[in-house]
Formats: sequence, C-alpha cells, structure tokens
Amino acid sequence: MSDNTGTAMAADQLRSFVERIVKLEEEKKTLSEDIRDVYGEAKSSGYEVKALRKVVRLQRMDQSQKAAHDEVETILETYMQALGLL
Amino acid sequence: MSDNTGTAMAADQLRSFVERIVKLEEEKKTLSEDIRDVYGEAKSSGYEVKALRKVVRLQRMDQSQKAAHDEVETILETYMQALGLL
Repeated sequence: MSDNTGTAMAADQLRSFVERIVKLEEEKKTLSEDIRDVYGEAKSSGYEVKALRKVVRLQRMDQSQKAAHDEVETILETYMQALGLL
Repeated sequence: MSDNTGTAMAADQLRSFVERIVKLEEEKKTLSEDIRDVYGEAKSSGYEVKALRKVVRLQRMDQSQKAAHDEVETILETYMQALGLL
C-alpha cells in the first residue's frame, strides 16, 4: 500500500515534469511559427530571406557580445571598488 | 531627396522586420533555457533525462496526432452536414 502510494507520487511528479516540458515545447513551437510568419511577411514585401536571416544572426551576435561586455564591465567595477580603486 | 526618403522608409521597414524576429528569437532562447532548467530539475529528482526526452517526444506526437484526428473529424462533420447526412 505504501509502495503503491510511493509509485503514485513518483508518477505524479514525473507527469508534472512531462507536462511542464510539453507546454514549454509547444510555446517554443508557436514562436517558431511566428518567426516563420515574419520571414514570410518580409518575403512578401520583397526582402531576400537568406540575407535577412544573416542580418538577424549578426544582430543577435552583436547583442550577445554587448551583453557579455557589459557584464565584464560590471564585474570589473565591483573589483575596482573592492580594491578601493574607484 | 525623395530617393533618400524612399531608402529611409525601406530601412525602417527592414529594421522593423529584424527587430521583430530578433525579439521572437530571444523569447525562443528563453524558452529553451527554461526547458533545459526543467530537465535539470528532473535530473536532480533522480529521473533519467534521455528517457524523459523520449516520453516528451512521444507525448507530443500523441497530442499532434490527436489534433490532426480532431481536425479531420470536424471537417468530416462539415461535409456530412453539407450533404444532409447528419
């Protein structure tokens, strides 16, 4: 009996993990469809999708590098303050 | 002058497409990180991630097949009604 309850509880926990992931995967799928739609819209407006994809990739790399740079700057500032250099 | 304005307008439109896609891609990235976190949580709870991934895949296939089946059923019903068979 206690074993059954234990199994039921594990199944509930497992089910909860599966449900959470399935939900997130579905949201991700919707976003992928949205992205595809925007590219489709751009194509209809006469833009070259491959070039646009490349612009998006470069833009995201830029943003990601900027975020990394800002983080290092923030940490640097903390170190400088800790050392009384600021 | 009018040529400059045309170019500026095209650039605005292009910028808008890029911004929309970048935003959606970022949201997608966040979801991917959330999914990774849930798998991490499941792993910490003692679940085997590879098996869990397979369950999620099967569950999503099930749901997608059910959705396709429901859609066919709905269309079938429309046809039957149109033919006065319902």
